[in-house]
Amino acid sequence: MPRLLLFLLLLGASGALPALPRRRGARTPTVPYLIRYFQQQVDHFGFDDNLTFQQRYLIADQHWKKNNGPILFYTGNEGDVTWFSNNTGFMWDVAQELNAMVVFAEHRYYGESLPFGNESYSDSKRLNYLTSEQALADFAVLIEHLKSTIAGARYSPVIAIGGSYGGMLAAWFRMKYPHLVVGALAASAPIWQFGDLVPCGAFFSIVTKDFKRSGTGCAESIRNSWSAIDRLSSTDEGLLWLSKTFHLCSPLKNLQDVAVLKRGLSDTWINLAMMNYPYKADFLEPLPAWPIEEVCKFLKDPSLSDRLLLQNVFQAINIYYNYSGQILCFDMAETATKSLGHLGWNYQTCTEMVMPLCTDGVNDMFEPQKWDLKARSEECYKLWGVRPRPSWIISMYGGKNIHSHSNIIFSNGGLDPWSAGGVTRNISHSLVAIMIPEGAHHLDLRGRNPSDPKSVQQARDLELCYMKQWIKMARRH
Amino acid sequence: MPRLLLFLLLLGASGALPALPRRRGARTPTVPYLIRYFQQQVDHFGFDDNLTFQQRYLIADQHWKKNNGPILFYTGNEGDVTWFSNNTGFMWDVAQELNAMVVFAEHRYYGESLPFGNESYSDSKRLNYLTSEQALADFAVLIEHLKSTIAGARYSPVIAIGGSYGGMLAAWFRMKYPHLVVGALAASAPIWQFGDLVPCGAFFSIVTKDFKRSGTGCAESIRNSWSAIDRLSSTDEGLLWLSKTFHLCSPLKNLQDVAVLKRGLSDTWINLAMMNYPYKADFLEPLPAWPIEEVCKFLKDPSLSDRLLLQNVFQAINIYYNYSGQILCFDMAETATKSLGHLGWNYQTCTEMVMPLCTDGVNDMFEPQKWDLKARSEECYKLWGVRPRPSWIISMYGGKNIHSHSNIIFSNGGLDPWSAGGVTRNISHSLVAIMIPEGAHHLDLRGRNPSDPKSVQQARDLELCYMKQWIKMARRH
Repeated sequence: MPRLLLFLLLLGASGALPALPRRRGARTPTVPYLIRYFQQQVDHFGFDDNLTFQQRYLIADQHWKKNNGPILFYTGNEGDVTWFSNNTGFMWDVAQELNAMVVFAEHRYYGESLPFGNESYSDSKRLNYLTSEQALADFAVLIEHLKSTIAGARYSPVIAIGGSYGGMLAAWFRMKYPHLVVGALAASAPIWQFGDLVPCGAFFSIVTKDFKRSGTGCAESIRNSWSAIDRLSSTDEGLLWLSKTFHLCSPLKNLQDVAVLKRGLSDTWINLAMMNYPYKADFLEPLPAWPIEEVCKFLKDPSLSDRLLLQNVFQAINIYYNYSGQILCFDMAETATKSLGHLGWNYQTCTEMVMPLCTDGVNDMFEPQKWDLKARSEECYKLWGVRPRPSWIISMYGGKNIHSHSNIIFSNGGLDPWSAGGVTRNISHSLVAIMIPEGAHHLDLRGRNPSDPKSVQQARDLELCYMKQWIKMARRH
Repeated sequence: MPRLLLFLLLLGASGALPALPRRRGARTPTVPYLIRYFQQQVDHFGFDDNLTFQQRYLIADQHWKKNNGPILFYTGNEGDVTWFSNNTGFMWDVAQELNAMVVFAEHRYYGESLPFGNESYSDSKRLNYLTSEQALADFAVLIEHLKSTIAGARYSPVIAIGGSYGGMLAAWFRMKYPHLVVGALAASAPIWQFGDLVPCGAFFSIVTKDFKRSGTGCAESIRNSWSAIDRLSSTDEGLLWLSKTFHLCSPLKNLQDVAVLKRGLSDTWINLAMMNYPYKADFLEPLPAWPIEEVCKFLKDPSLSDRLLLQNVFQAINIYYNYSGQILCFDMAETATKSLGHLGWNYQTCTEMVMPLCTDGVNDMFEPQKWDLKARSEECYKLWGVRPRPSWIISMYGGKNIHSHSNIIFSNGGLDPWSAGGVTRNISHSLVAIMIPEGAHHLDLRGRNPSDPKSVQQARDLELCYMKQWIKMARRH
């Protein structure tokens, strides 16, 4: 069965931007929920078209105290909402403790929540309503619907919870709709990965550090692999050798193909950094515990010959792509078009979610690549017929100047490259940052696990403590 | 020269909704300003069309302390921004005291800030970007532009100021963009005149009280006038008599015309209540000091015969329409289409700004009229091809649940009918209500006047005091 290098082609088309993680393959939920649909306006901010669509949401009330018990509201991000519900065990754990209802709201244009059905991605006209503002408005209207239609929920305090882009949405939701949520847990939310709020290279330097600390020679081996690939790519024999060595379903034909391979490798290292969890997990891909350590077992000697080094690199990425042992070859030709999640996020990075990222090959183990807004804008125009507005998110959500808001927890994993754009210091007594040094991408949102490091246990305890405070405060109003 | 009953036909088409006041006729400003234009996105919330337009704004820096002195930013409302600058003397007075720059930003679709030029009102497609959210986004982007391009303004604390709908925008701007303005003065801003947040009849009962307290028999005379008109309208001779008595340019032909006349009278009483200032003023119309008292001099005896009563009513409204003595006849045939302000506001009340208003003829002096959303929706669909979304403004801006915001002054005139939908009690130590018992519609925003009652002087002092606090607090961040 051919299996595609998931992030590869999409990111090939989207510049140096690694995608925020998204999940593949729904599993049977361990906790039962109901699947519901709610009619939303396609355009909350205009009145010309009165079109509507069905937004999907998951709801579970088995722990809910019906007399205005709290509601934990997951602000869905770029993917099928059932994936998130399966990978956000923390919410289910906390629901029990808080006697809370659990709601997972799907983000428009993802999963089943398609404003124009199968045509949702067909052109820029139909894509026009894929923005964070519209998504937040969906959440607002859905919450009002729930509170006005569920008996006993009218005065339920609602807490927004989200991870990654969903974490940004949770934070922004509290900022923009504080009348609807008493607080927000924004896990691994890089709300400052915009404009020049943080250095564009910080992201990749964290990825590199993860590899450095996971094995001697590891990061250095990867840094050396790029030029090794270049040298082999200069002959037809070398291209063939690379194709075979990396088990590609179709052989590399030119330097463009080679660039795609390199991008695939880069993205794999990035994804490993995000998914570097302390136990076996199956989030983006089935992975062993501390997968970077596993990977680095193959990458101890950076001084090997090109071919030996690259054979090792293949063994290493095989940890990521073939941990379950089912892949026969890597299909680079298969585009990501089948996954709306990828398409949608690509569109979002071409409009609002413009996150400058760059590498220099010195502070990181990647090939140097500058952030090039102009090139990105041209790509976006070719792909979607739109151009990015890089300063809009800062105008809209305040950039670093957010001190007048309240009741937001920003949690960050020390191993997570997205912490580079996160809020890692307290801004006020009610805008707090939580650091989880041993944590990868929103580890705190995952369910309890015996292998959890102490730091994530404490982070969750603190998060729960704040949530209880918010609920208590809300009861006073 | 024929002169039209300005609010008459427009409101005839828009149900029981009196328009928020708007100003006519630009005058030479007493304080000089520069007129500038700034390129704005037509659609801040979508990326399909990248169209732009020129937003007009007025700017004056003669009092500004160039080293990050404050900026007073008027959040323009439904009309030509030069009118507002001429009727907001308070800002010019305060600028001197605070060494502040003054900016008046024009609201899109009004004055010269037309997204599609003369075609801006041609269809619902082009009108689609006339919303409060887009207007606030214009203000946000404009402020960022000013701060990044004016030397010495980068750290200038900005205070939003507005009256009436502009006051709502000022409050909402602070709620949604607290990173851009340190506080807001929302003068006579009926942010609660939505949904069922306040009783729909409160507005008209305040108008009625204004007339009651301004002269014995006054409100009662007006209450009796409606049936007197009805009785006269039942014969052709009566219709002719009414047409002559009210100096109409074209005679009344049927009951529809009579309804328009009545609506015109209602609107006149409402406008007088809003404009009941303690000195001669020229805001909607040139008016004497305490104009309702002048009007009531003609309306002392409610028990007069129909014809005598209505002759007095004409004398009374003549105070409003013909104080300057230049009107020869009232032209009801002339529609309001020439005034973009009216058109635009009508569209806004047909979409977002759905303010339920009603009369019962008991607690007020008007003919009973229920709030009828369904009828209004049909009217709106016929007029504009859009339908109102009555709950959206509450979802968006929080309704009564706004306690988590800060640094907003809500000032209200006790004589102003719009105070019915205003915030008249403190919500927190930094969301404060100021009452001006002798004040009509945002009297506090007008320039100092020897006839100012003590209450408005104190209100302005308090407003200034809060502004100084906000500026001081902002310097700490």
